[in-house]
Amino acid sequence: MTGIGDNSEAGAGLVKSFVDRILRLKEEQDAIGDDVKDVYAEAKSQGLDKTALGKVVAKIRANQKNPDKYAETEALVELYMNAVEAEALTHARA
Amino acid sequence: MTGIGDNSEAGAGLVKSFVDRILRLKEEQDAIGDDVKDVYAEAKSQGLDKTALGKVVAKIRANQKNPDKYAETEALVELYMNAVEAEALTHARA
Amino acid sequence: MTGIGDNSEAGAGLVKSFVDRILRLKEEQDAIGDDVKDVYAEAKSQGLDKTALGKVVAKIRANQKNPDKYAETEALVELYMNAVEAEALTHARA
Amino acid sequence: MTGIGDNSEAGAGLVKSFVDRILRLKEEQDAIGDDVKDVYAEAKSQGLDKTALGKVVAKIRANQKNPDKYAETEALVELYMNAVEAEALTHARA
Repeated sequence: MTGIGDNSEAGAGLVKSFVDRILRLKEEQDAIGDDVKDVYAEAKSQGLDKTALGKVVAKIRANQKNPDKYAETEALVELYMNAVEAEALTHARA
Repeated sequence: MTGIGDNSEAGAGLVKSFVDRILRLKEEQDAIGDDVKDVYAEAKSQGLDKTALGKVVAKIRANQKNPDKYAETEALVELYMNAVEAEALTHARA
Repeated sequence: MTGIGDNSEAGAGLVKSFVDRILRLKEEQDAIGDDVKDVYAEAKSQGLDKTALGKVVAKIRANQKNPDKYAETEALVELYMNAVEAEALTHARA
Repeated sequence: MTGIGDNSEAGAGLVKSFVDRILRLKEEQDAIGDDVKDVYAEAKSQGLDKTALGKVVAKIRANQKNPDKYAETEALVELYMNAVEAEALTHARA
């Protein structure tokens, strides 16, 4: 059991120091999360669509992360969507 | 405080009955979740791409849920992506 | 690229069959998800707290999944919480 | 349709500026997310349990956010857990 070891006082300090560091980082993350919400609200106030904007941001991030994988997935999604739609049409006519 | 009321025995039975019902439903959900994983694994074994297949399923479900909203969002995503790419090109040439 | 192969007609049918199977399973999952929501709503109507009920369900599922890991984690959470609180008190008095 | 309006050039610039601002903020969030992972890895290297540490952080954040709601939920979770366990025992003996 990964307890806090024999010297529980030192152990308690150790736990608290890690908890405090994580809490501070999480607070920073929350603050940025609020900033992101503000930018989306501002975009909406200027007539842009938040859902579409979010999908564009996600696409650009995926492309930045792995351009080849992004391009391949986008091409396959289009290929599969056309396939499904074509099949649906064929069945509709049958 | 929404405790279990004065008659704690009846209250205990009440809590247990709701917990048991939710647990049973969650188990059914887990079982279907495993079935979904199996279908994706089978699709992969037949040469299809799981990520692309998942995105197609998500698009079709969004379209089934709200066709107008789906069509509008897809159009706006394309419009915004073209705008961002056009802007990037303009800056690249400047 | 894991496309749909040379025989695109067969490939299209393949994609559609997998998409249809996943869609059906997702619909079943959605239906059960609605049932879960109904049970929580019923529990709330009988005076129980949905958040607490959900945490109890999660604890029981974690225990069912891996009793040893569940027991160890619960014990460590208590140990660490006590450590953090003790440290906070020590600092408050210093 | 919340398109980009008549002056598409200005509109394109508008979309790009919002996308760029959100991308920058998301990158900051990612960087902090990596820092959080590093702290958990460091805690693990010093013998602490990441899962338990994460649950303690979550409890402290819930308490910071709404102390009354946190205290009530914790009390109800304990009450409901005892109820379920008591009921299970009663049935076991019956």
